[in-house]
Amino acid sequence: NHIIVCGAGRVGQHVVSRLVKEDVPFVVIDKNPEIIAKLTAEGILAIEGDAAEDEVLEKVGIKKARGLITALPGDADNVFVALTSKELNPHIKVVARANHVESQNKLIRAGADKVISPSVIGGRRMAISMLKPVSVDFVETLIHQGFEIEIEEIVLGNNSPLAGKCLKESGIKQKTGAMVVAIKRGEDIINNPSADDVIMGGDLLIVLGTRSQLAELEAMASPR
Amino acid sequence: NHIIVCGAGRVGQHVVSRLVKEDVPFVVIDKNPEIIAKLTAEGILAIEGDAAEDEVLEKVGIKKARGLITALPGDADNVFVALTSKELNPHIKVVARANHVESQNKLIRAGADKVISPSVIGGRRMAISMLKPVSVDFVETLIHQGFEIEIEEIVLGNNSPLAGKCLKESGIKQKTGAMVVAIKRGEDIINNPSADDVIMGGDLLIVLGTRSQLAELEAMASPR
Ligand SMILES: [Ca+2]
Ligand SMILES: [Ca+2]
Repeated sequence: NHIIVCGAGRVGQHVVSRLVKEDVPFVVIDKNPEIIAKLTAEGILAIEGDAAEDEVLEKVGIKKARGLITALPGDADNVFVALTSKELNPHIKVVARANHVESQNKLIRAGADKVISPSVIGGRRMAISMLKPVSVDFVETLIHQGFEIEIEEIVLGNNSPLAGKCLKESGIKQKTGAMVVAIKRGEDIINNPSADDVIMGGDLLIVLGTRSQLAELEAMASPR
Repeated sequence: NHIIVCGAGRVGQHVVSRLVKEDVPFVVIDKNPEIIAKLTAEGILAIEGDAAEDEVLEKVGIKKARGLITALPGDADNVFVALTSKELNPHIKVVARANHVESQNKLIRAGADKVISPSVIGGRRMAISMLKPVSVDFVETLIHQGFEIEIEEIVLGNNSPLAGKCLKESGIKQKTGAMVVAIKRGEDIINNPSADDVIMGGDLLIVLGTRSQLAELEAMASPR
């Protein structure tokens, strides 16, 4: 139930530091022995090898992994790794880096579940930083740092005492201070729900709040 | 009062498409005549030249520009452009691309107001997409697309009828449905404010809502 990171170069190194922060189990594959030595010295599980080879992916336990992030500098390599990993484990979730926008479709067709293009995100972010500087800082805080306020996803169990209540009755905002900013129900997303919107078992709540507010909410949502 | 974009390559092209969407006046500088021809054909103001040269920056009106976004592939070039543009117009806001994390400090010392590293943002985003897929989609919607829900910054005037009221009294949530997710007051940020928090003249409110909710709020906030 671990995550495999292919490539810890210019982009992959930031995948790694984020996974360290989130404290989830993962292993890194990189061709560069210096990168492997550096990661190993930091206490990170890392092996030298070519992620495009079946044996290497098998060695890092692809069949039992829950996800693979391929952040190699070459798009052809990322396509190849996406294909290979889905072949070896059809249930694995694959997030792939696209260096050129043109590669996005190829990566999706190769089986990637999500494609991230650093150039696209970076370019947009530069424009928005110019136009809406505060929002960018705020949203960066939300998704990247979680200084004070964090964004969390909470799945409401069918036995949750909150299931079947409207937001006002649920007391989420009043008792914990946390804010439900969206409700995902199957394929539907209810953005910015009102106090009268009902939350149901199986809903995924997207919630903003401090760490302690979110912990309080998780406790409230759990069946007694 | 326009924006100058230096470099419309792999990253800069996405700066451009975002500025087109936001409908703000801007001009592009790029060395590559093919890129200039393509932009011009799309009706975008673009001139061929080296953004590192004073004459080129003067030609695109740097002295009257409100901002400059330097998205060149070389960090040394971005440092140079940041320095030059602040020299020619000390009031200009500069957003710079850093290709290597190590360049971030140099760009800040060169006068950049904000430095964006596509590799850093891309890497983090890949990790978060693996761990919190719904939040990433949600936040991407917020800052990048604004499908239904948008994030907006509203400055509360001193004469605003909302100034001096607590959030509950203000009726923002009740009357418009929009959500105040943070209040920026001078250097302080009040995250996730409660119903009893008072909003004051001069505050910058960061608000989530649909376009119509936000329009309603802007009307409510304006002095009569
Ligand atoms: Ca990499
Ligand atoms: Ca560029």
